[in-house]
Amino acid sequence: MTEFLYEKIAVLGCGLIGSSIVRAGRAHGVAERIAVFDLSPEVRARVAELGIADVVAEDPARAVEDADLVVLAPPPGAIAAAAEACAPGLKPGATLTDVGSVKGHIGQSLAGIAPPGVFVVPGHPIAGTEFSGPDAGFPELFHGRWTILTPRQSDQPGYDEAVRRLAAFWEGMGAKVELMDERHHDLVLAVTSHLPHLIAYNIVGTAADLEEVTQNEVMKYSAGGFRDFTRIAASDPVMWRDVFVLNKDAVLEILARFTEDLQALSRAIRWGEADKLEELFTRTRAIRRGVIALGQESAEPNWGRDKDRT
Amino acid sequence: MTEFLYEKIAVLGCGLIGSSIVRAGRAHGVAERIAVFDLSPEVRARVAELGIADVVAEDPARAVEDADLVVLAPPPGAIAAAAEACAPGLKPGATLTDVGSVKGHIGQSLAGIAPPGVFVVPGHPIAGTEFSGPDAGFPELFHGRWTILTPRQSDQPGYDEAVRRLAAFWEGMGAKVELMDERHHDLVLAVTSHLPHLIAYNIVGTAADLEEVTQNEVMKYSAGGFRDFTRIAASDPVMWRDVFVLNKDAVLEILARFTEDLQALSRAIRWGEADKLEELFTRTRAIRRGVIALGQESAEPNWGRDKDRT
Repeated sequence: MTEFLYEKIAVLGCGLIGSSIVRAGRAHGVAERIAVFDLSPEVRARVAELGIADVVAEDPARAVEDADLVVLAPPPGAIAAAAEACAPGLKPGATLTDVGSVKGHIGQSLAGIAPPGVFVVPGHPIAGTEFSGPDAGFPELFHGRWTILTPRQSDQPGYDEAVRRLAAFWEGMGAKVELMDERHHDLVLAVTSHLPHLIAYNIVGTAADLEEVTQNEVMKYSAGGFRDFTRIAASDPVMWRDVFVLNKDAVLEILARFTEDLQALSRAIRWGEADKLEELFTRTRAIRRGVIALGQESAEPNWGRDKDRT
Repeated sequence: MTEFLYEKIAVLGCGLIGSSIVRAGRAHGVAERIAVFDLSPEVRARVAELGIADVVAEDPARAVEDADLVVLAPPPGAIAAAAEACAPGLKPGATLTDVGSVKGHIGQSLAGIAPPGVFVVPGHPIAGTEFSGPDAGFPELFHGRWTILTPRQSDQPGYDEAVRRLAAFWEGMGAKVELMDERHHDLVLAVTSHLPHLIAYNIVGTAADLEEVTQNEVMKYSAGGFRDFTRIAASDPVMWRDVFVLNKDAVLEILARFTEDLQALSRAIRWGEADKLEELFTRTRAIRRGVIALGQESAEPNWGRDKDRT
């Protein structure tokens, strides 16, 4: 083993995220060899055709043989099953990680499934697009994005070193890495990602069901704000179904607060409480400035996208 | 009068939209002379400094003297007051329009205020950015965007011609024009623009009030979906306050449906009804394809903006 972080890595599940890891891993030279498995024969065939991996295995346990790092990247609800399927092939000293948007539930599952001597370090790259499948991936997907790792309580010798190496792996692909408690991760993501998606799915559904306004009109005049929601609500349905099932508690807690606030807002509109409305709208504008100040987005107007607010 | 649609136009209120009309009107040669008035002395001084108008008047009635077209472009709640202030100066045969995001309430006000012989043709350009003020405007703001005109029942001779000319004015600035009943406009916009803004303001407010998750964390991990909401929730507080007050009925009706649907979704999460979730999420994805097919947005992934979904 030379300058590579890992001699061999195996990626199980080769959609948008999995195939981006494969591409980025190769482009950034963080692993010497990359093996891939996907449950779908079509995806396996496509990955072989794309030629992005060294090996496309026909069996998950074979894919992970000799791997120093195993990345589980199927939809969140299939991560535990993928871990079980590959467990017989895992070598002692290997690191087992995943990319699921929910960490508490998945972390506990992986800890229960991994054989002794395997280091379980769950992870979550906060990156993605509205597109799915092996063709949607690209090597720069993680550039400048956060990846959160949620290490578990462990007294295994070598565990801390496994965490450090996995962090270096993500950094090698251009990501910024943060360590976090898994329960806290699930709450933070419930706010910053899961609820926004739920709301977007819901509003697009509501709009589609109206009798007085045609679907054509909704789409035609979507530049007034709605369009951004359609992009979020176009995210992978299976992945998001799993997120809400697996992060039920945190999502319902945040959703309850959101609904409560929305009722108050509704009441302010009904009673024409203009001051209350303006106070909230002024406060939220300040938060936007924080997002810009933190470098999460450019302060420069991006006319190509932003000029459609009404 | 030569090739100009209007010899003189007057724009009252010179923020993002008003100043964009002034700039676009000049750039596209749709009017020979442009006069401007704004209630704020600072804005008037700034507009004079920018040199984008022929005249910056100190008084609304003076600004509209001899004008063939008067465009009312203050925040929606101030449009009726602007009409009243300029009414003494309006000449017979002039067209009086506005740019408010609510048409029923405003159309009725304008019809009641305009002197006999003035043509009232309310309008609404579906264009904007998260930025406000005279410096935020630019001449291409309306390019390829819809402007909806809501002509009123009128037996005034020349009314239809006034509507046609106003449509040509907007088309001259690059907009696509549609005529619509004002009540229907308010319902369509409640869905495609007002509710999305209300929801965005609400979720950003909810996130700001959490005890367990810091504001810094919310902003840091906003790439998972939340960030798009912060942009929408940074829109002008005064304008949006007015929109919700003036379009109360339509907004509350659409909001009630949204809330009903959200309760059903919440229940599906609580009971782990994965099929129901997947069915909705699949349906909303199809709507996104409609937005793209209608040419409202490119099907090409825009990585600069879209690569931050999780």
